[in-house]
Amino acid sequence: MALMKSWVASANSPNTDFPLNNLPYGVFSCGNDTMPRCGVAIGDMIFDLFKAESDGLLGDLAPVFDVPYWNDFMALGPDAWAGLRATLMDLLKDGAEERPDYLVAQSDVRMVLPFQVAEYTDFYASKDHATNVGTMFRGPENALPPNWLSIPIGYNGRASSVVVSGTDVRRPWGQIKGPDDDLPRFEPCKRFDLELEFGAIVGQPSDGPVTVAEADAMIFGYVLLNDWSARDIQAWEYQPLGPFQAKATATTISPWIVTKEALEPFRTATPDRERDLLPYLQEPGPMLYDIDLDVALAPDGGPETVLSRTNYSVMYYSSAQQLAHHTTSGCPMRVGDLLGSGTISGPQKHQRGALLELTWGGKEPVTLDGGEIRTFLEDGDTLTLRGAAKGDGYRVGFGDCAGKVLAAFAAPYSR
Amino acid sequence: MALMKSWVASANSPNTDFPLNNLPYGVFSCGNDTMPRCGVAIGDMIFDLFKAESDGLLGDLAPVFDVPYWNDFMALGPDAWAGLRATLMDLLKDGAEERPDYLVAQSDVRMVLPFQVAEYTDFYASKDHATNVGTMFRGPENALPPNWLSIPIGYNGRASSVVVSGTDVRRPWGQIKGPDDDLPRFEPCKRFDLELEFGAIVGQPSDGPVTVAEADAMIFGYVLLNDWSARDIQAWEYQPLGPFQAKATATTISPWIVTKEALEPFRTATPDRERDLLPYLQEPGPMLYDIDLDVALAPDGGPETVLSRTNYSVMYYSSAQQLAHHTTSGCPMRVGDLLGSGTISGPQKHQRGALLELTWGGKEPVTLDGGEIRTFLEDGDTLTLRGAAKGDGYRVGFGDCAGKVLAAFAAPYSR
Repeated sequence: MALMKSWVASANSPNTDFPLNNLPYGVFSCGNDTMPRCGVAIGDMIFDLFKAESDGLLGDLAPVFDVPYWNDFMALGPDAWAGLRATLMDLLKDGAEERPDYLVAQSDVRMVLPFQVAEYTDFYASKDHATNVGTMFRGPENALPPNWLSIPIGYNGRASSVVVSGTDVRRPWGQIKGPDDDLPRFEPCKRFDLELEFGAIVGQPSDGPVTVAEADAMIFGYVLLNDWSARDIQAWEYQPLGPFQAKATATTISPWIVTKEALEPFRTATPDRERDLLPYLQEPGPMLYDIDLDVALAPDGGPETVLSRTNYSVMYYSSAQQLAHHTTSGCPMRVGDLLGSGTISGPQKHQRGALLELTWGGKEPVTLDGGEIRTFLEDGDTLTLRGAAKGDGYRVGFGDCAGKVLAAFAAPYSR
Repeated sequence: MALMKSWVASANSPNTDFPLNNLPYGVFSCGNDTMPRCGVAIGDMIFDLFKAESDGLLGDLAPVFDVPYWNDFMALGPDAWAGLRATLMDLLKDGAEERPDYLVAQSDVRMVLPFQVAEYTDFYASKDHATNVGTMFRGPENALPPNWLSIPIGYNGRASSVVVSGTDVRRPWGQIKGPDDDLPRFEPCKRFDLELEFGAIVGQPSDGPVTVAEADAMIFGYVLLNDWSARDIQAWEYQPLGPFQAKATATTISPWIVTKEALEPFRTATPDRERDLLPYLQEPGPMLYDIDLDVALAPDGGPETVLSRTNYSVMYYSSAQQLAHHTTSGCPMRVGDLLGSGTISGPQKHQRGALLELTWGGKEPVTLDGGEIRTFLEDGDTLTLRGAAKGDGYRVGFGDCAGKVLAAFAAPYSR
């Protein structure tokens, strides 16, 4: 597919994340607004959907943009999703009536969380990541758990921890026991890390098990996701019931929900199975996407260094498979549930999506372009995830997923 | 403390769960109501708070009972909590103006979830339970994990799974691998179990670490909680990231929130520490409660057998300690968060709070009063948790926390 032209000039650049082909959904706040508004990114502008709906440009949709989140629209279902996309294509395409009054410059707004996160689940679906982490935490002989090739392993995370790109992240305190300590101490995390992930947003509810095809149809769109991780807290706490406080400080998502429709041209299949999947997990078609991803780190006031370059297509399980598995027990899924893919690491060293893997548990520090050395994150570091699917002369991007690390409180209760 | 008399005669029985001393909060639905209403249990009646608020009986509270859940009231904070309790004491005490128009018989209503569950976290705070389960899952040498005496171990559960007492629970499907199987099968759970727990409801938010005393002040009240558990699914899935689908089918809570104020006379200390706790977990006063608990099982159409009798005071960590630990990472807590205590098992066999422990993994079946034998739950079984703090001639009870097991779907997608 080629670039689709818009009357918004900046949307026609081959370098924009937001051509007409994309039309991702966010929520923005302009200075003195009483309420943030839903909008769609087009080039370096935002088309104001609150105003468009108020003025009757969106047809006979129920009012769903009188709230500062996309949940009400998601709840309308796939026909409404397709309908709005078609309407927006007509409104914004080259040759359509130009409506500059509906545009706001992205540089003039602050983005807020695009949806109310109902619940957040995090998975563990990159085989290279699972193997690397397993080797470090449990040794090479126990690296990949016996269930890993059968189950899209996941755990429930904390929805209240989800923040939008641009939100500072304060280094956590926690219980930490070093390898030479008899007992844990309560102190600030010393091995604070990122995890490069892809987040799927559930746009339709379920109240019983669903197939992979049904699960795919329930997904509204995708965001980039940084699952900030306190490795020293994690190592001591995670047995036997899994990660808890190590993952609860913050989870940053990109501000724009890229819809499933926008990603359709980039569908790609999961890798060959090393063990046959049970039928309920088998995919009726390609369920991953070919999306280039990278992770960049900038020290306070310093230049940015790209730490990792990978692609979402390396994952062993798709979001649709993860969602289908999530429903097997009868677990009700709700509009606004967020599923993290798990850290996206490829087989090569430069494709690893976490410092834990890039520095092999801190043993192999990385040198940044400005000369600084990192094993884990330092205060003042800004982490930025970026991603885009690359078409013929255009890209479907997500916008930056960024966060800066603040120093821990001097004492945990001195906030 | 002695029984406090009410003009509602049934509240003066020494056997009622709901004397004036208690005043627990729920939400009830009467047949054709358009919206369920908040109410307070008094004897075998409910005092209608929607009507009381509408008629101005509750003073200058903001309208908080025009919604079918207690979250809006909880958000008002501890002064409002104390104020409403004092108002209700005055309205319902012996000698006050009798207002039968505000009463509805409990037998005439259906109870619904008393609050919107923001997020649900489950802990693991009974040392006997952790030791028993650890012995069965990992062997006696690894029974109690090394972190257990330092951390109130917890994991995030699934809020969407929480249902009110009386809701049927359908046996789940899941991935199950028997000890002699090479690979898992996808089939209905064969080891479906209960867990007797106590649930704490967070009534005030936090956005950074809180002390144990602050955590205690954030707790609005308590419910009984049955953490339905699929043991065969759990055994195969839980390594390395913890329980997931094994715990996501349903979590039943009792319909009445017993307030912290009602339980004040029954506070009791946690047991002696076998290892000094880190200072952030040390308690400024008694934070457990002396509450007798039992678990009863009734086969379909058969008599009820009490399987277990224990007491909440056996726990090693209190809800306030668990909540304080939950905030260490900066994890934001929200109004309506629910914290499960973990299975409440005492040191004696009849004090065990799950069939897994009572039947030692199915090896020691229990015989019910009607002669039937159980290792795990059978279709048609009704499980009922009950609990009460016992005062001088009165009890502060929770009402039944009950659920009936339905047969699994013939195939998971045939619902």
